[in-house]
Amino acid sequence: MNDPCVILVNPQMGENIGAAARAMFNFNLRDLRLVAPRDGWPNEDAQRNGAGALENMQISIFDTLEEAIADLHFTLATTARPRDMTKCVYTPRGAVEAMQTRSGSGAKCGLVFGGERAGLYNEHIALCNGIITIPTNPDFSSLNLGQSVLLLCWEWLSAQDNSPAAILQTGDSFPAQQAAMEELFQRLELELEHGGFFKAPDLKPVILRNIRNMFLRAEMSDQELRTFHGIISALIGKKKRPD
Amino acid sequence: MNDPCVILVNPQMGENIGAAARAMFNFNLRDLRLVAPRDGWPNEDAQRNGAGALENMQISIFDTLEEAIADLHFTLATTARPRDMTKCVYTPRGAVEAMQTRSGSGAKCGLVFGGERAGLYNEHIALCNGIITIPTNPDFSSLNLGQSVLLLCWEWLSAQDNSPAAILQTGDSFPAQQAAMEELFQRLELELEHGGFFKAPDLKPVILRNIRNMFLRAEMSDQELRTFHGIISALIGKKKRPD
Repeated sequence: MNDPCVILVNPQMGENIGAAARAMFNFNLRDLRLVAPRDGWPNEDAQRNGAGALENMQISIFDTLEEAIADLHFTLATTARPRDMTKCVYTPRGAVEAMQTRSGSGAKCGLVFGGERAGLYNEHIALCNGIITIPTNPDFSSLNLGQSVLLLCWEWLSAQDNSPAAILQTGDSFPAQQAAMEELFQRLELELEHGGFFKAPDLKPVILRNIRNMFLRAEMSDQELRTFHGIISALIGKKKRPD
Repeated sequence: MNDPCVILVNPQMGENIGAAARAMFNFNLRDLRLVAPRDGWPNEDAQRNGAGALENMQISIFDTLEEAIADLHFTLATTARPRDMTKCVYTPRGAVEAMQTRSGSGAKCGLVFGGERAGLYNEHIALCNGIITIPTNPDFSSLNLGQSVLLLCWEWLSAQDNSPAAILQTGDSFPAQQAAMEELFQRLELELEHGGFFKAPDLKPVILRNIRNMFLRAEMSDQELRTFHGIISALIGKKKRPD
């Protein structure tokens, strides 16, 4: 899978170039292309705000967007404003899917971002295969350059990442097996019976089922199960003492 | 659907509080809770970097995390470091799914973030229902506070957003209908035949199929179809002129 490159067209503040670089490297992208940065290159603010990312990336400088994307096969331009052009408009996630499809067959893709003040001009957008628009609160839609780059790089990484949406981290311990849970329920039922917990015998089955559900939802580990047996023992002992 | 709130525990720099607020408001979240901000509240740097977001949000200050989350039902703590605790660890997308499920049944959820220097302590994490870890490049994993908040708020908004992954924006024009495309193909074939384009007659069907595929992939609009008819006319004229 070819990772996409990021192209910043006429970026103004070095600080934002640094933030964009850091965001790329956070999510493992390393090909940053700058088209005519306002303050030239290298840039001290970029270096300072890049926090060690710039040194680990490939950074190239171009005079025009045409030159910057000459070796690419599929480029998408980010813009907040709708343009009067017949072009496919992608969400960030849709854009990443479209790039994955192309990268998978060997194409090299690029994400194109405009400068802070004016964004991309129509001439820039006409050079690209499609448009990305990030959905935001219509009353407060401005994302800065670094944040837009962060968001797209994050979408790229998370599309590659196939870790499960959630894992139960149990450390050295293991999830408790059903048989061990059953043993706990049996013991608890017995001790609750002794303690006079079931006032209305006909409700006992329902109450026991509710208790089971509560404990099963907790998905105890072996260690926690042992702890819970200890809790029962302690409570029984405590209850007996006052007698 | 209840939107989640964002809780910043011991945030240090006002600038980052402002950035977090801006990121929330960009993606339509409005309940920001601060636990013992280092420099007190209100904070000038936060105000300046909040760029108009703070005024549109509900901001509350608490002494402890316990108080800040007292009215919530499901809280997730963001942390980069694995902790020795039996807790569910979510990806950002998994976290948003888990919160959606709860919000859907009326629960109020919270996203808890630690301060810049030390993050969340184990005592904070023990108060939460689960953990969120943002997958990053292991060699460059540090995201700042504002960026982490941005990323989670974005995931929340994009989970609510059901716009299609891509739309073909055709402006005032409409996509060309198949019959009109067919007419174009017929005309093109005729003109190519006249121009002596098909050198090897047995290859003609394959070549025509390839040409069709190329044009259908472009998904022309009505307007573009008319333009293309114009192109053919102009090329024929041009070709005829030298004769």
